[in-house]
Amino acid sequence: MRNCEGKSSMFQVFFPSILKFVIIACLTLIFPAPTLSLQSAINVWPKPILLLWPKPLATFLSPNFTISSPNHQYLIPAINRYLRLIQTEHHNPLVTPSVNISTSSPPLQTLTINIIDLTAPLQHGVNETYALSISEVGATAYLTAATTWGAMRGLETFSQLVWGDPSAVPVGLYVWDAPLFAHRGVMLDTSRNYYGVDDILRTIEAMSANKLNVFHWHITDSHSFPLMVPSEPELGAKGSYGPDMIYFPSDVAKIVQFGLEHGVRVLPEIDSPGHTGSWAEAYPEIVACANMFWWPAGSQGDDRLASEPGTGHLNPLNPKTYQVLKNVIRDVAMLFPEPFYHGGADEIIPGCWKADPTIQTFLFDGGTLSQLLETFVNSTLPYILSLNRTVVYWEDVLLDENIKIDPSFLPREHTILQTWNNGSNNTKKIVEAGYRAIVSSSEFYYLDCGHGNFLGNDSQYDQQTTANSGNGGSWCGPFKTWQTIYNYDITYGLSEDDAKLVLGGEVALWSEQADPTVVDARIWPRTSAMAETLWSGNRDETGKKRYAEATDRLNEWRYRMVSRGIKAEPIQPLWCVKNPGMCNTVNPF
Amino acid sequence: MRNCEGKSSMFQVFFPSILKFVIIACLTLIFPAPTLSLQSAINVWPKPILLLWPKPLATFLSPNFTISSPNHQYLIPAINRYLRLIQTEHHNPLVTPSVNISTSSPPLQTLTINIIDLTAPLQHGVNETYALSISEVGATAYLTAATTWGAMRGLETFSQLVWGDPSAVPVGLYVWDAPLFAHRGVMLDTSRNYYGVDDILRTIEAMSANKLNVFHWHITDSHSFPLMVPSEPELGAKGSYGPDMIYFPSDVAKIVQFGLEHGVRVLPEIDSPGHTGSWAEAYPEIVACANMFWWPAGSQGDDRLASEPGTGHLNPLNPKTYQVLKNVIRDVAMLFPEPFYHGGADEIIPGCWKADPTIQTFLFDGGTLSQLLETFVNSTLPYILSLNRTVVYWEDVLLDENIKIDPSFLPREHTILQTWNNGSNNTKKIVEAGYRAIVSSSEFYYLDCGHGNFLGNDSQYDQQTTANSGNGGSWCGPFKTWQTIYNYDITYGLSEDDAKLVLGGEVALWSEQADPTVVDARIWPRTSAMAETLWSGNRDETGKKRYAEATDRLNEWRYRMVSRGIKAEPIQPLWCVKNPGMCNTVNPF
Repeated sequence: MRNCEGKSSMFQVFFPSILKFVIIACLTLIFPAPTLSLQSAINVWPKPILLLWPKPLATFLSPNFTISSPNHQYLIPAINRYLRLIQTEHHNPLVTPSVNISTSSPPLQTLTINIIDLTAPLQHGVNETYALSISEVGATAYLTAATTWGAMRGLETFSQLVWGDPSAVPVGLYVWDAPLFAHRGVMLDTSRNYYGVDDILRTIEAMSANKLNVFHWHITDSHSFPLMVPSEPELGAKGSYGPDMIYFPSDVAKIVQFGLEHGVRVLPEIDSPGHTGSWAEAYPEIVACANMFWWPAGSQGDDRLASEPGTGHLNPLNPKTYQVLKNVIRDVAMLFPEPFYHGGADEIIPGCWKADPTIQTFLFDGGTLSQLLETFVNSTLPYILSLNRTVVYWEDVLLDENIKIDPSFLPREHTILQTWNNGSNNTKKIVEAGYRAIVSSSEFYYLDCGHGNFLGNDSQYDQQTTANSGNGGSWCGPFKTWQTIYNYDITYGLSEDDAKLVLGGEVALWSEQADPTVVDARIWPRTSAMAETLWSGNRDETGKKRYAEATDRLNEWRYRMVSRGIKAEPIQPLWCVKNPGMCNTVNPF
Repeated sequence: MRNCEGKSSMFQVFFPSILKFVIIACLTLIFPAPTLSLQSAINVWPKPILLLWPKPLATFLSPNFTISSPNHQYLIPAINRYLRLIQTEHHNPLVTPSVNISTSSPPLQTLTINIIDLTAPLQHGVNETYALSISEVGATAYLTAATTWGAMRGLETFSQLVWGDPSAVPVGLYVWDAPLFAHRGVMLDTSRNYYGVDDILRTIEAMSANKLNVFHWHITDSHSFPLMVPSEPELGAKGSYGPDMIYFPSDVAKIVQFGLEHGVRVLPEIDSPGHTGSWAEAYPEIVACANMFWWPAGSQGDDRLASEPGTGHLNPLNPKTYQVLKNVIRDVAMLFPEPFYHGGADEIIPGCWKADPTIQTFLFDGGTLSQLLETFVNSTLPYILSLNRTVVYWEDVLLDENIKIDPSFLPREHTILQTWNNGSNNTKKIVEAGYRAIVSSSEFYYLDCGHGNFLGNDSQYDQQTTANSGNGGSWCGPFKTWQTIYNYDITYGLSEDDAKLVLGGEVALWSEQADPTVVDARIWPRTSAMAETLWSGNRDETGKKRYAEATDRLNEWRYRMVSRGIKAEPIQPLWCVKNPGMCNTVNPF
């Protein structure tokens, strides 16, 4: 069972008056029977840490239902949005709730929001705790939250508790809730294929509904540079896929604002020095190996110029590289208030730098490729810090086999590493080196895997007697199912202390084979699986993985997301949803 | 190179006056250079058998462009549709066509359609040959077709030749075209999850654009019975997922009519005697093992009651089974004019029939399960034939390891078998037994594979140190990429004579994890890959697989489908599309 003791002491800070309730709550976790009725009735995804609803009673929502709250520039739009949703959604659960309308409860008139700290900004580690109570006798529900952002989480929970036409809402219900991990994100690559602003906003909205809080925007890469950087307008003008496929500052402002109104941070990534082929459209002189065929004829894999088609690395020896890059960093810091700045720094391919004449001279004179990367980091990281940002890099700067830098160049207090290789092994290496980690293991959290390779002449698919076995040509295949994502424990194998350095996780959608036509279905509902695991875990009260029980709840939530306009893919036949338990097996596979 | 001799003699029957042209065409295949210019200019998918366009010249489409044709109830709607499309599409190719507007050619005023046999109905083997010519000097293009249905293929080709704003169209262009295989289909399962009529119509429209001609509608299964059968209304009323998830006769009529106007046959499948759990909602007495847990506790896989959750087989020993089923067959034959009737007959699971008391007695008295299936087939197949239908069954009736019937019960002249197991091996078994085959190999043509298992408590996904290897829990994983589908030769390993018994192929979308949210992206553009392979093959003039060259063309076609409203998934970064050849590799994987 969960550590209620720790939670209650933390809780006491904010809500001493209801400490008693928390103790009751802990007891109820030990005797969880009464709460189970909710599962066959009304579903909240991700499952709250603590939800008490001893009697399955509900009341109607008053036609004049309102939400009252303190004034806050980002909370008020959220409230207006939720009020509209609550009044109009009339969610029709797939399995009819076994709930009785209480004859003694008045219609619910008001949800009153109290916020302990109205000034806390949306940033890493902000307190998202909230408590929600809907009593049997009053006509008012209370949402008490540590911060504005916790209030948004509570509003989402409240919205999911409302169903039917006329709208009903449980009474005698108490929720106490807070996330297990502070960093819960989605990474979207908008360089390989472009996404409209609407696609991004819809994704952020769905993230908010799943209580996720970081939209990691992998804006640029070798394939296109779809950002209009005011100080370097040529980069977007020449490096984007076209004038209709650029994010202008006004678009960024809209996305950032939308994020704030949804409690979702917008964390920009300008990947460099690798993954920068598109920069060469404007500045060919600062990009090594640009516009070359990625895999020279006759060479082996180690001599490739890029990890995939689309070559180009910034040249660390050219002073102009830093002139352009610092302009970009400064403008991006201006456009994105988020205190984290993602610098990329993944997949430096030896062959690319080696193809550049100036670098060849440097190497001939005894320099190494790792020194080049150190030069690059040392010429940019201090500048990023000077803008009051924490730097996030992909793990490669520390863990790459060939080209990596000495940890002394990476101050632990200002550097976070995002892991994507070797599952829990690399997470362990990062935290054991004293760095904070964000987990995006490609074996568990890469949403693009399992759709084959995108190379035009990939002859492995030309088989007649058997189809492709194994991963089907996808380097990170197979497809990561929602169960794979749900079951992954991002602190697996870590000591308690080391685990504290794991800030959270992000699923990643790389866009070689994704674009707006499929973005919803690639991300949802699989990302909902991560959202629950990072919010309240993937285990039941007895410590067992709860994926079987989660299936029915995720089904219900997936259908609700679809009705809210997110084209999440189905996980089962509708028959399974309507016949709970019948799509299990008694024999584990 | 293709057998132009055979084609020309066939062609002579219809178009003796242009035999000379065909000879020129054959010569041009030997010297194919002039036609290559089209590939960098205007793309037709599937690639026509023969396309001549020696000079990359074009003219504008007259604002008053019209299409003239003989009168035909299904052709006229098609013409109206194509005229609207041609006038309004203004397709903007991803790679700017290297085409010159001819200064000597007048704007194209008219496409004149001639049809040799205006009475040929849409059925298997109907002649789909067409020839299209757009001369440099006239203002009229000519489309000559063997039948109405061939004319629809030619209209599609013409529509794909038009691009730009103002609309341009090639001149000095000649196409001769006819399919390699007569049966080119998509199977959609509307039982496990429901699809709206609009989803089906959109799928048929996209099929027509890809010159596919059979919509195999797997209407019913164990999970739901979404069809209102006039003589047996209880089946749909009780067996569907709900009143808003039933196809009424008016819906079927609309779909059939839409198919006729698009040259797409609508082939109904009422799967029986297996896959009939949903029938038990109306008639529990005719269904063995209905509504049971599919895998009894403690039993092994062989003792399962169903191949997946959702149990129920029609009971061949109950006379009422045939009373109900014959009503269904008769009504379905009435609703669907298509001369093929698909009876299903796949996956008879021993455990299900064995669970039924009357069958237990039959077995105790010395009967066998195969005899039960023979009884079933012998009680239904003659009735289907009496309705002037050819029966299609899944291969299982002949090839299942446990329960199969003697070929004497399956008249070869009236029975077609659809293969789905063991790749080309089973195709071979079917045709060597003298049956005609439709190829839907699950190793190549199953569109649903690679998205994991849908069982709620599938513990194989609970791994921490490595992700699921291999097929990722999907029985038929990995995901079948478009290249896998494109490269499969459905007559692989067959003698020339045996190959003639292969009518064609069908991709199949089983809907355990698909529904309207993902149907477009699951089907397209992978089905386009099959469409080209079955229409004009997957090899170039030298006999080499043309998948690399096809990549750029499929990309272009995929984007055109998206602009036509089909949410086909992307196969590459847009960068690859804009940089042809750069996403190849010199080293085969």
